[in-house]
Amino acid sequence: MDFTSFLTSLATSFIIFVVLVLVFTWLSRKHSNDVIYYPNRILKGLDAWEGRRTRNPFAWIGEALRSTEEDIISMAGVDTAVYFVFLSSVLAILLLSGIILLPVLLPVSVTDNTDKPKSESNSNGTFTNLDKLAMGNITEKSPRLWAFLFATYWVSFVAFFILWKAYKHCSKLRASALAEPNLKPEQFSVLVRDIPSVPHGQTRKEQVDSYFKELHPETFYKSMVITDNRKVNKIWEELEGYRKKLARAAAVFEASKTIEKPDGTKPTTRTGSLGLLGRKVDTIDYCNEKIKELGRKLDAEQKITIKERQLDSALVFFNRKTAAASASQSIHAQNVDTWTVMEAPEPRQLIWSNLSIKFYERQIRKYVIYVIVFLAVVFYMIPIAFISAFTTLDNLKKLLPFLKPIVEKDAVKTVLEAYLPQIALIVFLALLPMFLMFLSKTEGIVSESHAVRAASGKYFYFIVFNVFLGVTVGGTLFSSLKTIEKNPNQIVPMLGSNLPKNATFFLTYVALRFFVGYGLELSRLVPLIIYHLRKKFMCKTEDEVREAWAPGDLGFATRVPNDMLIITIVLCYSVIAPMIIPFGVIYFGLGWLVLRNQALKVYVPSYESYGRMWPHMHTRILAALVLYQLTMIGYFTAKKFYYTPFLVPLPILSLFFAYVCNKHFYLGFRFTPLEVACKSSKEIPNMESVFQAYVPPSLSMDKFEDADQFEDAQSQTS
Amino acid sequence: MDFTSFLTSLATSFIIFVVLVLVFTWLSRKHSNDVIYYPNRILKGLDAWEGRRTRNPFAWIGEALRSTEEDIISMAGVDTAVYFVFLSSVLAILLLSGIILLPVLLPVSVTDNTDKPKSESNSNGTFTNLDKLAMGNITEKSPRLWAFLFATYWVSFVAFFILWKAYKHCSKLRASALAEPNLKPEQFSVLVRDIPSVPHGQTRKEQVDSYFKELHPETFYKSMVITDNRKVNKIWEELEGYRKKLARAAAVFEASKTIEKPDGTKPTTRTGSLGLLGRKVDTIDYCNEKIKELGRKLDAEQKITIKERQLDSALVFFNRKTAAASASQSIHAQNVDTWTVMEAPEPRQLIWSNLSIKFYERQIRKYVIYVIVFLAVVFYMIPIAFISAFTTLDNLKKLLPFLKPIVEKDAVKTVLEAYLPQIALIVFLALLPMFLMFLSKTEGIVSESHAVRAASGKYFYFIVFNVFLGVTVGGTLFSSLKTIEKNPNQIVPMLGSNLPKNATFFLTYVALRFFVGYGLELSRLVPLIIYHLRKKFMCKTEDEVREAWAPGDLGFATRVPNDMLIITIVLCYSVIAPMIIPFGVIYFGLGWLVLRNQALKVYVPSYESYGRMWPHMHTRILAALVLYQLTMIGYFTAKKFYYTPFLVPLPILSLFFAYVCNKHFYLGFRFTPLEVACKSSKEIPNMESVFQAYVPPSLSMDKFEDADQFEDAQSQTS
Repeated sequence: MDFTSFLTSLATSFIIFVVLVLVFTWLSRKHSNDVIYYPNRILKGLDAWEGRRTRNPFAWIGEALRSTEEDIISMAGVDTAVYFVFLSSVLAILLLSGIILLPVLLPVSVTDNTDKPKSESNSNGTFTNLDKLAMGNITEKSPRLWAFLFATYWVSFVAFFILWKAYKHCSKLRASALAEPNLKPEQFSVLVRDIPSVPHGQTRKEQVDSYFKELHPETFYKSMVITDNRKVNKIWEELEGYRKKLARAAAVFEASKTIEKPDGTKPTTRTGSLGLLGRKVDTIDYCNEKIKELGRKLDAEQKITIKERQLDSALVFFNRKTAAASASQSIHAQNVDTWTVMEAPEPRQLIWSNLSIKFYERQIRKYVIYVIVFLAVVFYMIPIAFISAFTTLDNLKKLLPFLKPIVEKDAVKTVLEAYLPQIALIVFLALLPMFLMFLSKTEGIVSESHAVRAASGKYFYFIVFNVFLGVTVGGTLFSSLKTIEKNPNQIVPMLGSNLPKNATFFLTYVALRFFVGYGLELSRLVPLIIYHLRKKFMCKTEDEVREAWAPGDLGFATRVPNDMLIITIVLCYSVIAPMIIPFGVIYFGLGWLVLRNQALKVYVPSYESYGRMWPHMHTRILAALVLYQLTMIGYFTAKKFYYTPFLVPLPILSLFFAYVCNKHFYLGFRFTPLEVACKSSKEIPNMESVFQAYVPPSLSMDKFEDADQFEDAQSQTS
Repeated sequence: MDFTSFLTSLATSFIIFVVLVLVFTWLSRKHSNDVIYYPNRILKGLDAWEGRRTRNPFAWIGEALRSTEEDIISMAGVDTAVYFVFLSSVLAILLLSGIILLPVLLPVSVTDNTDKPKSESNSNGTFTNLDKLAMGNITEKSPRLWAFLFATYWVSFVAFFILWKAYKHCSKLRASALAEPNLKPEQFSVLVRDIPSVPHGQTRKEQVDSYFKELHPETFYKSMVITDNRKVNKIWEELEGYRKKLARAAAVFEASKTIEKPDGTKPTTRTGSLGLLGRKVDTIDYCNEKIKELGRKLDAEQKITIKERQLDSALVFFNRKTAAASASQSIHAQNVDTWTVMEAPEPRQLIWSNLSIKFYERQIRKYVIYVIVFLAVVFYMIPIAFISAFTTLDNLKKLLPFLKPIVEKDAVKTVLEAYLPQIALIVFLALLPMFLMFLSKTEGIVSESHAVRAASGKYFYFIVFNVFLGVTVGGTLFSSLKTIEKNPNQIVPMLGSNLPKNATFFLTYVALRFFVGYGLELSRLVPLIIYHLRKKFMCKTEDEVREAWAPGDLGFATRVPNDMLIITIVLCYSVIAPMIIPFGVIYFGLGWLVLRNQALKVYVPSYESYGRMWPHMHTRILAALVLYQLTMIGYFTAKKFYYTPFLVPLPILSLFFAYVCNKHFYLGFRFTPLEVACKSSKEIPNMESVFQAYVPPSLSMDKFEDADQFEDAQSQTS
């Protein structure tokens, strides 16, 4: 890619961004789009408009900048606040690095013109201005490389400093959120799994109750045995389906009452499959009948479920936070694979169907999934290598000669050259997250937030191995495969020598991500269009409209690993081609700004894990840092710099830093420290509401609101 | 070593053993030796004689065989019982293996005479009967190797089966011992370390008390702040020294009152260093004076210590076992490296001086020690390799020609040839344990039993790497060093091909260990001689005599790794040279018998860790098993057997077995499960005695028996 096409790409991206921002400004002022641009405010019962008429089109920027951390926590929860700590930490690392690296390294590179051999220029053989700004322009063995060596250290120490402060901050955020006095049912609950088989003459519930009553005589409140809800859920969903259908039919009927036809037309349906076959009946009557019938069925099924479908897990409730926190951290049984306890997840993020997976099955599932992910990571590399090899114009022309006349046109050529590989990559990566989320849930993880972290971790491996290593190493994969085979130790030096050639590719990639990505994010064009289409053609009832504009959450499972990829890229190139730092700064700065707006006004968090994402992010930033340090060792070696061994302490230092952080903070994220659990108000809350919070909707019908009945039914079990 | 010298060695060992047993029979019948042969019974207040006059000389064998596990637990504690579980498990593994392997493999080996190439015979070029019984006699690629392959599987599965049962049994032993109602102070205590600096206006004790009172309002009893006792200990030791001296002087004075001289001679001493210089004074007066003076000094020092030398650790006492168990497993502070808690060790095994080592210092010490041990393991290999290379007679003759005339004599030659290398090894290994114990304590471990486990683990590495690998690989080290350098992957095949050559060496080694080792153990010749010498020439008072016969404990730190070495050797040769199995059986059978006697009558355990040694032993037996499996893969490869890959699942299976055992049992050994802590009587014990148990002797003088004073003094701290 030459300099012109790079500039074109940048310009195009920027224009798209400007257009999207203008579109956002225009669309967000229309009252009918409020539910797309302000759903979080609306759902929280706040005024979406709030003086919006008078303000200028870019007022959202001011609002985002003025918003405090407390605003974020109250509007979007601790997890989102931690995500902003992450964004601002990375921003700080890049800013502090850039302040030193840009003014120092760029002049050092540019002024090195002494006896430059022709072969040192970039891969196309043309020597561009961009390449002159990079470390590639420095002569081998030159003493100027000292500047780059110190820069490598500077970036690392800046990262250590900022990360330590960020971890400390997140730890405080988590502690103060956990210590807040508002009722959190999960703080009074413990999840117990692998309960041994019921002793003769006892019910499961009696077994659990007597066990915990003995061990925690003063603090045990009650227990809820986990049941196999598949059947009852199915009936309940069917019932809900008919309820929706009824509401819809009623709305349609109401709408059909025009002035000419004041009685309206009663909507009809067919009783067969998909409503296409079978007898034609009046929908409202049919639904009412069905609802009655299913209600009776649900009644019966609920009783059967509670009595007969009890599994070997339970939720145990305590009347004190410290008691629950302490119980969740203690070994209960002599055989450690029975009566295993853990902190209960929030009711809304409990993955009920995973609760009863047996101890060793969980372990086996985990390792099987690891193997699958490993295989996937390795074998996805192959198509990616092909993509990066084929999506150059020259290759396309060779392979698909009929495209030649189109591709030869100048405008088309420039755009294609700029975007083709990146678009291929993005499309390719969009297919993965669902698969990974599915895998993570199959592992047997019991909480949504943990599954998100697991999926995010897997996605990170994919991205780093396939995109970053795939493009850098894979770009020359076919030529260097033989080298690797002969000597696998050559991977680090190869990484070092291949990276610089791909600098412009990644500059373009980052620019594309921030301009187009955040432009789309801010303007919300896709949800807007879908919403209006659904509203116009499909939605009949208020509930359906509400469903159509439901904003979803920030989607950390894909957002975080994508940010991680950018961090990895920017860190790895930070010293080699310092020009990438401003791009990184724009990415995280713009991201902070746009997402601040989205967090305050758009997205509604679907769970709260009190910042448990942070250690996950911290570890991965450090992994990126180590990768960067290894790359630098490789590149300095390629430059034949005698003092390269001075860099060896850096990765060791990083590992040591990771170790200390882990020891100092991690367990406080893994568990709730007693100190924290103790801080909040010591009053015993309404324990019944804690218990009710965990009753799944399919089991908590009107008649079950009386909890005693629920419990009675449970204790009647044989 | 040829067959004659092997037989000579066996015979010599056996004769020594018989002589030692006869000596034991004769000596143990003398009343004056009771304190050497029955100290445990005497200290427990039991009758040492108990019908001994009438019984036959080998009655001890019957007594040992008849003793039950309960006898062992009551006489020698759970740790010793677990050690016998270990001995009998290994015995069972070897017996079950031998039952199949000996009748099957020996005939298969012996009858393979088909076209035997001369080069296949043993290293000396002579083909002995012993070698015909081993796998080395099988022709390459022979289908007879199938029998050996199945034998390899059989031994592994027998080991899995027995180990699982043993782990289960130990787990039960531990649980029932922990659940016993007798008072164990450590079950009510928690050790707290890394307490943050004292807040302004509070004392350390107030800080600890208020912290734990808040987190455990109902169950907190009181706390004891750890102090720096070095000074007070020194004074106390000096004081104790003078007390002993006074008692001794009084005894001497009493003894000098003969009939001729009814007033006796007052003993005198000199006040200068070592009692050799300075003024001559009356010892009794001098000591009395000194004791008074030091008593006052101790008083003052105790107050200063309690007030001013408080460190950042404390023991916290709870009034319920479950509360202590649960507290010791819970994270207390948000910053996990402060307020770290763990189960308190027994008072008698608390290593007081290690209690206040800071969190990160502990970690650093640990890793530094690991590095030191690693270096020691690697570099001790060099002298061992020399020993095994030099201690052959031929080498000795070459190197030290003046020895030639002595060595040439037939009798001397045979004995030397049989024992020289083994004795060199044993002497060499005797130097290590103290060094390793010192290293383990330097790590910052807070309990004696943990230090013993740590030292034992280190010793195991030494033994396996240096003795086993050193002798097998090192014996041909100089010739094969080049092969290894060229291709490090050759280690496993090399191990496989070198092992058989050393089979007779190890047969002799094992025989030496069990005949001479257990003979000496039973006869207790060394302690007997030392006791009689001390009693005759040095002891004047009853206390001094008691000190002279103090039996010590079983010494697991060296005993266990030595047994482990035998297991490793026997397992590794079990299929290659099945003749080693009977030797292993005798080692562990004889060991069980002799040590049963010693445990019941001689040794007094110096601590009780409730079987925490078991997971340690279990892991190392499994490590020996994996080493054996790898060796077999190597040896089958050397035999060019096509179906060698069928052995690859075995080590994987072993790792899986280790994983399952670990998950199923380990944490129950690491912590006290609540279930177990809960089982014993629920009465609140005399908490004051729990507290007093932890007051170190140097701080608990008569005046401090009133605990309130002690506490008052503590709380007066600024």
